[in-house]
Amino acid sequence: MLANTESFSTTASQSVQELTQLLAASAIERDEQGGTPKAEREAIRRSGLLALSIPTQYGGQGADWAATLDVVRTFARVDSSIAHVFGFHHLLLATVRLFGRPEQWERWFEQTARKNWFWGNALNPLDTRTVVQRFDDWYEFSGKKSFCSGAIDSEMLVASGLDAQSHKLLIGAIPTSRSGITLHHDWNSFGQRQTDSGSALFERVRVEESELLLEPGPLSTPFACLRPLLAQLIFAHLFLGTGEGVFAEMKHYTRHESRPWFRSPAHEAGKDPHTLRHYGEAWVGLESVRLLVEQAVRLFDEAWSRGDALDANARGRVAVAVATAKVAATRVGLDLSSGLFEVAGARATHGALRLDRFWRNLRTQTLHDPVDYKLQELGDWAVNDEIPAPSFYS
Amino acid sequence: MLANTESFSTTASQSVQELTQLLAASAIERDEQGGTPKAEREAIRRSGLLALSIPTQYGGQGADWAATLDVVRTFARVDSSIAHVFGFHHLLLATVRLFGRPEQWERWFEQTARKNWFWGNALNPLDTRTVVQRFDDWYEFSGKKSFCSGAIDSEMLVASGLDAQSHKLLIGAIPTSRSGITLHHDWNSFGQRQTDSGSALFERVRVEESELLLEPGPLSTPFACLRPLLAQLIFAHLFLGTGEGVFAEMKHYTRHESRPWFRSPAHEAGKDPHTLRHYGEAWVGLESVRLLVEQAVRLFDEAWSRGDALDANARGRVAVAVATAKVAATRVGLDLSSGLFEVAGARATHGALRLDRFWRNLRTQTLHDPVDYKLQELGDWAVNDEIPAPSFYS
Amino acid sequence: MLANTESFSTTASQSVQELTQLLAASAIERDEQGGTPKAEREAIRRSGLLALSIPTQYGGQGADWAATLDVVRTFARVDSSIAHVFGFHHLLLATVRLFGRPEQWERWFEQTARKNWFWGNALNPLDTRTVVQRFDDWYEFSGKKSFCSGAIDSEMLVASGLDAQSHKLLIGAIPTSRSGITLHHDWNSFGQRQTDSGSALFERVRVEESELLLEPGPLSTPFACLRPLLAQLIFAHLFLGTGEGVFAEMKHYTRHESRPWFRSPAHEAGKDPHTLRHYGEAWVGLESVRLLVEQAVRLFDEAWSRGDALDANARGRVAVAVATAKVAATRVGLDLSSGLFEVAGARATHGALRLDRFWRNLRTQTLHDPVDYKLQELGDWAVNDEIPAPSFYS
Amino acid sequence: MLANTESFSTTASQSVQELTQLLAASAIERDEQGGTPKAEREAIRRSGLLALSIPTQYGGQGADWAATLDVVRTFARVDSSIAHVFGFHHLLLATVRLFGRPEQWERWFEQTARKNWFWGNALNPLDTRTVVQRFDDWYEFSGKKSFCSGAIDSEMLVASGLDAQSHKLLIGAIPTSRSGITLHHDWNSFGQRQTDSGSALFERVRVEESELLLEPGPLSTPFACLRPLLAQLIFAHLFLGTGEGVFAEMKHYTRHESRPWFRSPAHEAGKDPHTLRHYGEAWVGLESVRLLVEQAVRLFDEAWSRGDALDANARGRVAVAVATAKVAATRVGLDLSSGLFEVAGARATHGALRLDRFWRNLRTQTLHDPVDYKLQELGDWAVNDEIPAPSFYS
Repeated sequence: MLANTESFSTTASQSVQELTQLLAASAIERDEQGGTPKAEREAIRRSGLLALSIPTQYGGQGADWAATLDVVRTFARVDSSIAHVFGFHHLLLATVRLFGRPEQWERWFEQTARKNWFWGNALNPLDTRTVVQRFDDWYEFSGKKSFCSGAIDSEMLVASGLDAQSHKLLIGAIPTSRSGITLHHDWNSFGQRQTDSGSALFERVRVEESELLLEPGPLSTPFACLRPLLAQLIFAHLFLGTGEGVFAEMKHYTRHESRPWFRSPAHEAGKDPHTLRHYGEAWVGLESVRLLVEQAVRLFDEAWSRGDALDANARGRVAVAVATAKVAATRVGLDLSSGLFEVAGARATHGALRLDRFWRNLRTQTLHDPVDYKLQELGDWAVNDEIPAPSFYS
Repeated sequence: MLANTESFSTTASQSVQELTQLLAASAIERDEQGGTPKAEREAIRRSGLLALSIPTQYGGQGADWAATLDVVRTFARVDSSIAHVFGFHHLLLATVRLFGRPEQWERWFEQTARKNWFWGNALNPLDTRTVVQRFDDWYEFSGKKSFCSGAIDSEMLVASGLDAQSHKLLIGAIPTSRSGITLHHDWNSFGQRQTDSGSALFERVRVEESELLLEPGPLSTPFACLRPLLAQLIFAHLFLGTGEGVFAEMKHYTRHESRPWFRSPAHEAGKDPHTLRHYGEAWVGLESVRLLVEQAVRLFDEAWSRGDALDANARGRVAVAVATAKVAATRVGLDLSSGLFEVAGARATHGALRLDRFWRNLRTQTLHDPVDYKLQELGDWAVNDEIPAPSFYS
Repeated sequence: MLANTESFSTTASQSVQELTQLLAASAIERDEQGGTPKAEREAIRRSGLLALSIPTQYGGQGADWAATLDVVRTFARVDSSIAHVFGFHHLLLATVRLFGRPEQWERWFEQTARKNWFWGNALNPLDTRTVVQRFDDWYEFSGKKSFCSGAIDSEMLVASGLDAQSHKLLIGAIPTSRSGITLHHDWNSFGQRQTDSGSALFERVRVEESELLLEPGPLSTPFACLRPLLAQLIFAHLFLGTGEGVFAEMKHYTRHESRPWFRSPAHEAGKDPHTLRHYGEAWVGLESVRLLVEQAVRLFDEAWSRGDALDANARGRVAVAVATAKVAATRVGLDLSSGLFEVAGARATHGALRLDRFWRNLRTQTLHDPVDYKLQELGDWAVNDEIPAPSFYS
Repeated sequence: MLANTESFSTTASQSVQELTQLLAASAIERDEQGGTPKAEREAIRRSGLLALSIPTQYGGQGADWAATLDVVRTFARVDSSIAHVFGFHHLLLATVRLFGRPEQWERWFEQTARKNWFWGNALNPLDTRTVVQRFDDWYEFSGKKSFCSGAIDSEMLVASGLDAQSHKLLIGAIPTSRSGITLHHDWNSFGQRQTDSGSALFERVRVEESELLLEPGPLSTPFACLRPLLAQLIFAHLFLGTGEGVFAEMKHYTRHESRPWFRSPAHEAGKDPHTLRHYGEAWVGLESVRLLVEQAVRLFDEAWSRGDALDANARGRVAVAVATAKVAATRVGLDLSSGLFEVAGARATHGALRLDRFWRNLRTQTLHDPVDYKLQELGDWAVNDEIPAPSFYS
């Protein structure tokens, strides 16, 4: 019942396993440190997985989204920060693919695959402080931008700003080293501590027209509108993976460390009737999320393969499936990461284990956009047969 | 995202649609009456659907379980009593297939397909009041049996009793008209009112050895142990269908009858923010159950197709999937059938609509065996990697 | 921890016990019949309890609201229809007290106490179909009115209509026998079946100015605004009593009828670990509601005793306490009336027991006004420190 | 509706306010540091509150338990570590009072009041590694003991060990500075970080018979059995206070920092319909817990005042009230400390705010003993009318 990861090459699969072990080995320590996981990012660069979603004709591995996001989920079992940044790297590649012209993204794909570039995010459309001045055939970005996950230590940046005249959102893809860009090491949240989701400052940053994603442009077509769905789908995989991770840790703890309560009829903690019930509930929850996530990514891949032929209705159906998966993954993840302590017992709170990190990571990342408004969208579909209106969050 | 019903012939599919409409037309009235739905049972007989799961070589339609149980789910949207009895008819056919010898069930399959026999249930293994005396080459059943769903107006009966000497469970398949059998019209529950799940009395009923399912016998092999899983899987389809039915009714009511509360910002009931959230929650729940049920029946069909090659472990995995689906279907069904009234409003309680019947039906049928013990089994799998021990309920 | 009923005379208390037993004896049968419980209403008339809340100087028993509503709660344990109508009788007495002039209500109080009048409801302010024409010193009510609980077989009626000119709500207290009033026997809901909450027709019904509650008038002062809080408080007592009723029935059933599941480690149903947990949850829920309801009625009685000195803020605090109690009572009542079947088992669904009636009654009555909007009010208090704006529902 | 803290002297009340402000000022920083809050403990010593529960004839302030635990609750709003240790200090005073002879505790009470002693815990009865050898008129404790909250920087210690011969639990009260006692600075949990709940080592520690609590002895009488109930009641106050603390923080954040979601109909975050609902739910939960906790401490004070006249049944009723309050406080506290982030938004996860500490503290402390077994006890009361059997956890 686990996701199938055989759709991409065995080499990739092996890399994923090795990387996951590598990430697991230092995850506790790095959760404490926060900051940028340089060594781990280098290992990811070396693995070739940054080209995972890039089509083979551009030097990539040609994995579909199911396979790509399965890596996000796998990483998330042990390290949801890196899983997030890795997922967003591929989201940003999809962004240039969906919003830009082939002559733009083909080149970026090739270079990314060849040079193992990491892409970072500076796009937050709700932060309107970055303004774009237009000149002859170039533009100038000035202002601040928050929540720039994975921007530090990236080679490329997808950045957004509001056109000073039209107030339209403009999105560009530029080298992170471009003059005038300062990335602040100011990310400090109690969760997702190594995502570097801090702030960026743009001081008269020159962006060429050829670097702007003007055609077809952001959220311009049903196909282009797959972008926010991919972001949401990454979250669903992230939350599922984190839920699977905390489940695995707690299961191990219950079996190997916990003792039955002195009033329990059971001889081992894992056989206590209440413990069994809690794990039964956890199983029902996780299994539901697994199927919802797998359905969503399957529908997403189908929609993706239709390209510009995708219509708004079909895109809407994908949006519903993605939102459903994300809501369920949010709920179940939060429930497990807090609730399973009840079957692990007081010693599972030992500081050295940092088992609270799963809850901290989920609690932080699940606030990206409100569950209540996702439920509203799903309700509008359920009762009024209306598909979600595309936005950067739907 | 709805289940695929195209796996059996278009004729069958059309029959299902027509029958469903027929059942819907009188469902409210028959819920009030209780008793035996003679006309509807005759219509089912005429439809040929009693041979749906019977392989084509015996004159049946050769539908797999996914297709067969999809009919249970479809019927359950409008009439969960008939859906139950129809599902159990096929369960009883599977019972003779799994517990008996080919020369037994081949004949029964052929006759059922040719004569449109209805099979009824008198097997309840927890009711030990029926005792079997052994004679030379025949047996005698005497005693009572409760919860005999679908026994009245059936042609064949699957009945159980305890061997007076060995206390072993013996199961026979006998004509309902066999001398000594009295079926009491004493089913009176507040739900599932037309399942005729009343009591039977066996007074020295003669059963030939050729009518007993001795080889391989009840729960004798992993393959034979699929029988209780099929029963549980029927419940999962029943509960899902009922949940879908109440959802559809309430959606219709909200859209066409309800008015927004005077403090609501919305102009129509279906656009109220809280109403949207309730329907969003309903959608997440129903969609989870749909996928869990579809996964379970898919795994069940795979296991079924392996026949005697099925091993205990593979059977155990099916058991887990079925239990997961059933628990989720129970929860979601009960939640929706009670909770959605909150978005339909006070007038939806009008007696003539009998919209309470979905809750009454689910509340009654979901008590067949306790959810808590299903969760224990799932917990044992989740935390201890132990598959459920086969029983008539697992 | 049960509510104290000793605050009114021992005679009254004894009447309540006797009446409760009387109601219990026929509750199942009358739930089936629906209609008007004439014999039981006569018994209530004879008991003198219709004068319970009437001050002693007007011939009543001078009970405070805690004592009066405790009777509602006690009746509701066995018959929530009569509990409702009995509570609303006292609500209507409070209505003339709060909205009218002393020379109006003093007379009505005396007559009610002396003649054991029953008051009925025809006030539903959301139903705007009844229009009032104004003449010299009298008025004429014409039109329909829905949800007229307890109107049939009443002596007095509190009726509302919209002034044809000003569209202002006018409320009058008139003899039920007044010419032009037709009460339809058309209440038919799946719950609260003996509340006679059907429709009324007013055909040019003459109402004297002295019968209109013009001074201080509906919802005119903080004190007058206690009226909707009393209505909500009656519901809270009704739901709590119903919850206690189903708890008592299920407890009895579990202890005397249920058998432990064959996989249970327990020798009696009531000792099964999961059964214990369900009852533990039920206890926590019921006990919370008991305290919330008792706090609410205590604060209500305090506010009532302040009369016209009551200010909006103090009234607001009562509103918060009442809303809190009502939300909790709604939730817990619904949970218990559906959920406790899981610890009673399949046989508790037997039709003759009609144990589903508690859920049917609660499900019907809890739809009076939406829980979601009560939660909004409570949220506004909790986060914005704003007291609920008075209305006929807050 | 807040607890009344006027039952003890105004001076004490003022101390509590000042101390609470002092604790609040450094709570974030100290949560990060962990370890022993020396300065704050000194401030508590100076405040005289260590003598709060000591009767006036022994130099104490003579507060009842309602007043004493109200301080625990107040402290817990800002610092649940110090609240815990402060509560346990009074628990340990109650321990010598309940388990020892007057000539023992009278002296300890006087000295504690005069010298502002802090009492620390080394009693954990589930840790059986400390063994007691008996000599002529003295005893020798040797072995380890875990979860010794508040032992470091205390003047007195309540320690337990198993009698080497009889295996009976022996409890002594000894100066923390007694030769042979080593308190390890090894408490490192993700929550309750300044409770110093680490381990102690006893190396041939001499304990005089006059220091052992032999008469009436541990859990020897119904009155002595109030000790575990006081421990549980402290937890209930601790969890309620923590819940109130996180509620206050989140409310402040929502009102002053949050912005409404771009799809919200509201102009301020605090007026969003979903935000209102979340706060409404929080209010219902908190208010329930407040009343349950206040009922429990009221019943506890009544039972306490009965002294040795208290019988097992009356003690059992207190046990039920305490368990009910504790279960509800656990649930609501955990819900709020995780759930309210949904109405505060992503920025509330900022590391500098450490708003996750409420969840971390509650998650850690609520694992002291399993909620499931508290529910079992409550269930046994609810369905079987059986009072909880006394133990160190009931």
